[in-house]
Amino acid sequence: MMKVVDLNCDLGEDFGRWEIPLDPQIMRYITSANIACGFHAGSPSVMRRTVRAAAASRVGVGAHPGLPDLVGFGRRAMDISPSEARDDMVYQLGSLIAFARAEGVRVTHVKPHGALYNQAAKDPRLAEALVEGIKEVDPDLIVVALSGSNLYSASKAAGLPAASEVFADRAYNADGTLVPRSKPGAVIHEVEKAAEQVVTLVTRGVVVAVDGTEVPIVADTICLHGDGPDALGFARTIRRALEDAGVRVAPMHEWLGVS
Amino acid sequence: MMKVVDLNCDLGEDFGRWEIPLDPQIMRYITSANIACGFHAGSPSVMRRTVRAAAASRVGVGAHPGLPDLVGFGRRAMDISPSEARDDMVYQLGSLIAFARAEGVRVTHVKPHGALYNQAAKDPRLAEALVEGIKEVDPDLIVVALSGSNLYSASKAAGLPAASEVFADRAYNADGTLVPRSKPGAVIHEVEKAAEQVVTLVTRGVVVAVDGTEVPIVADTICLHGDGPDALGFARTIRRALEDAGVRVAPMHEWLGVS
Amino acid sequence: MMKVVDLNCDLGEDFGRWEIPLDPQIMRYITSANIACGFHAGSPSVMRRTVRAAAASRVGVGAHPGLPDLVGFGRRAMDISPSEARDDMVYQLGSLIAFARAEGVRVTHVKPHGALYNQAAKDPRLAEALVEGIKEVDPDLIVVALSGSNLYSASKAAGLPAASEVFADRAYNADGTLVPRSKPGAVIHEVEKAAEQVVTLVTRGVVVAVDGTEVPIVADTICLHGDGPDALGFARTIRRALEDAGVRVAPMHEWLGVS
Amino acid sequence: MMKVVDLNCDLGEDFGRWEIPLDPQIMRYITSANIACGFHAGSPSVMRRTVRAAAASRVGVGAHPGLPDLVGFGRRAMDISPSEARDDMVYQLGSLIAFARAEGVRVTHVKPHGALYNQAAKDPRLAEALVEGIKEVDPDLIVVALSGSNLYSASKAAGLPAASEVFADRAYNADGTLVPRSKPGAVIHEVEKAAEQVVTLVTRGVVVAVDGTEVPIVADTICLHGDGPDALGFARTIRRALEDAGVRVAPMHEWLGVS
Repeated sequence: MMKVVDLNCDLGEDFGRWEIPLDPQIMRYITSANIACGFHAGSPSVMRRTVRAAAASRVGVGAHPGLPDLVGFGRRAMDISPSEARDDMVYQLGSLIAFARAEGVRVTHVKPHGALYNQAAKDPRLAEALVEGIKEVDPDLIVVALSGSNLYSASKAAGLPAASEVFADRAYNADGTLVPRSKPGAVIHEVEKAAEQVVTLVTRGVVVAVDGTEVPIVADTICLHGDGPDALGFARTIRRALEDAGVRVAPMHEWLGVS
Repeated sequence: MMKVVDLNCDLGEDFGRWEIPLDPQIMRYITSANIACGFHAGSPSVMRRTVRAAAASRVGVGAHPGLPDLVGFGRRAMDISPSEARDDMVYQLGSLIAFARAEGVRVTHVKPHGALYNQAAKDPRLAEALVEGIKEVDPDLIVVALSGSNLYSASKAAGLPAASEVFADRAYNADGTLVPRSKPGAVIHEVEKAAEQVVTLVTRGVVVAVDGTEVPIVADTICLHGDGPDALGFARTIRRALEDAGVRVAPMHEWLGVS
Repeated sequence: MMKVVDLNCDLGEDFGRWEIPLDPQIMRYITSANIACGFHAGSPSVMRRTVRAAAASRVGVGAHPGLPDLVGFGRRAMDISPSEARDDMVYQLGSLIAFARAEGVRVTHVKPHGALYNQAAKDPRLAEALVEGIKEVDPDLIVVALSGSNLYSASKAAGLPAASEVFADRAYNADGTLVPRSKPGAVIHEVEKAAEQVVTLVTRGVVVAVDGTEVPIVADTICLHGDGPDALGFARTIRRALEDAGVRVAPMHEWLGVS
Repeated sequence: MMKVVDLNCDLGEDFGRWEIPLDPQIMRYITSANIACGFHAGSPSVMRRTVRAAAASRVGVGAHPGLPDLVGFGRRAMDISPSEARDDMVYQLGSLIAFARAEGVRVTHVKPHGALYNQAAKDPRLAEALVEGIKEVDPDLIVVALSGSNLYSASKAAGLPAASEVFADRAYNADGTLVPRSKPGAVIHEVEKAAEQVVTLVTRGVVVAVDGTEVPIVADTICLHGDGPDALGFARTIRRALEDAGVRVAPMHEWLGVS
């Protein structure tokens, strides 16, 4: 059976006049876009133009809701209650769905941003609250969650389709968790090494942890970056390596949970 | 033929911990609720509980989008571009629709708030932009607009159902516009006089202007207030006066544009 | 030697049109006001009128800076970096100092709000960062900190005057920390019991902990509340009990650190 | 007598993670920096680093307060009341003064941003309100205002030092006002023509209007831009042209209002 994987990227993280420099060519290599919804980034007109660009590139349009923290770009953990998290999710999802409708496309997935993603990976109550909010709005949405996380299992438990996300440029521990950025070797800078990691993840379902052991990991979608010095070269190399290995690269909503 | 009218009220204009004191009994007298969407008031959890309360009272759930000005409560005119206004409308509508879906009801109407309402009454380009945003999201939504305003005519021109709004407690000029609040006699404080004005508006389709002339005005929905010293008594009196005059009081979506 | 104590209260926690209902009579019982600075509450015109009211009542004017979280009222812990906390402190302090200057008074003290107060009590690096920001702006400001907290010791270590804050309506553990609100008996509802606690704290320098042991605690200032069902009666009773016990109640800047 | 002029530039208009790309070399050519204060741009840590950079370059540190409109970058006119404008001015001034104090420098001037600058140029009541706010905080601050504007005259009337600002890259009408950007020829794109205009302004006190007439204009400070395709080349050329014409280029606070 042919292996298949999705390549996702966070987009639309501008705000008002401010832009995160991003090469629009990135659209050629990814298959799903996670679009900021106004809480950590993304104002209404930014959301409109990002949805439009994703639609024009036939890339899956997803929501990328974050914590209500513009100045901190949603990267600072917050002691938000489950009901607040659920309601913030409903609000942000609704806003993106409206832009998708305005542009004639549908929202296919949702991936929490930054600290919200990390908190929901670890905290089962927060994960359940987010999943509850997603389910209330549209139970067909695919939840993109860190492989092995509480958000992933909460999505499955609630009957929602879930995509297990892996990282091309991050090292893994022997228990399948990511090596924290504060530790040496946490980030993989060599594109060839990153490409090798994702090919192994997708074709064999394992990652080689920092201690050399092989760890089984489900890899439905790979997180790529749209900014940074060589984001485009990185994305292109990853995609080619996958295709050269016989992997089909396609939007998650085309194959995930489709029987 | 029996006359029919809707009674609408702005609700959910709390924010976070802050509340606008409001008697929940107001729900017994109104038929449509306009619920703030986060830009001038209304944070996610406030929106949730307001939609839930409106649904429980079988009151029409509407969106009440405003200018992005929390500190000014959306009451300060802003030189917003038509495309910004359209996108702000799409964003806010989407967020309320999501809460309505979460609570198992549908959004029936939309009424811009404060300065946005006033600006869209006078500025045809802004009115068209708001209508475009509404139409993109849901062309079945009823647009609540000041009687005789640009927003009313722009809605009709775009093929959207529109409700002509009148005021119980505001005096009218001979050309059908409202007497500005800065002028003496602009606000009607006596509830009997207000009740007489709305009964005349609904049963005869006219208002007696400040100069004594009778002015023809379409009255689909009457704006009531939920806060203020005797909001409840005012609402009750208005509703009873209408019913005593043989007018049916019912949510606009039950009869407006329904053939 | 006559005992002396300050009574402080958080004020100006309105925002734009929204008000926290508060009895202005509270000014008669307190000696220091902690005024919100715009991040968790308090918009510019609110700050102006609160500074003016405090000045008119000859109450000490203090800053009450919070986390940048309006919707959460600064009550949700945030993973803010020390340098961000320091800069947020400088910003908020500066804004209040400007209003004080405009109203012809000076700022006498600073008390962090909500989650920031709690985080700075426990986290020495955050405490040091806040103290650094305060010192940069005005090294004569009195830092109001939880008795026995890291913020208290960091202030002292940096050479800033510090006021040890105690609570009339909170129970204490045997180690001098507050019983968490989640535990039974954490909040003292009987005003006589609260009054007894503060008189004991001020006159004897001890508190009777929940396990019955006496714990030594420095009590420079007592936190009173301006909102709530019987805030005024509570404040009046506390103040009278102190005065009946021969304690002088006076603004902290009149006696703290003054040799 | 030797002619003297100041060259000012808006700086620190980043927000949180977002940056307006700006060549730091611009500091070599300007003499005064107008630093955003958080309402239209400029978060606390951005303000800190901008004040520090300006201080290191021995450039005059000024406040650049704007309307409370992050998403619109303070460029959308708002119907703000005089007292709101005054209080917003006090708040923002205070915040910048605190950072200046923290960095060991003093604030020398204040220049309103964008729509606030334009509104205060035309509306005498708004101009007076801003001047009142500035005077309350520090009556020695130099008010930078459009030449011939209400803000300029209101500053003078209140006894505050004022700097008359001119533009290198904007065409003037015969009445001394700027040609609106919506009209052809409003913006001067040729750097030589701009340089000639400023030299004429500073040395002869006149500008050649679009209709060819010479209009007398006071030129105390010239507005330069830090962003845009060739901001640096533009600034360098302007400065050299002035120096070649024997004009002294120096911070306004060194010579304006100094007797």
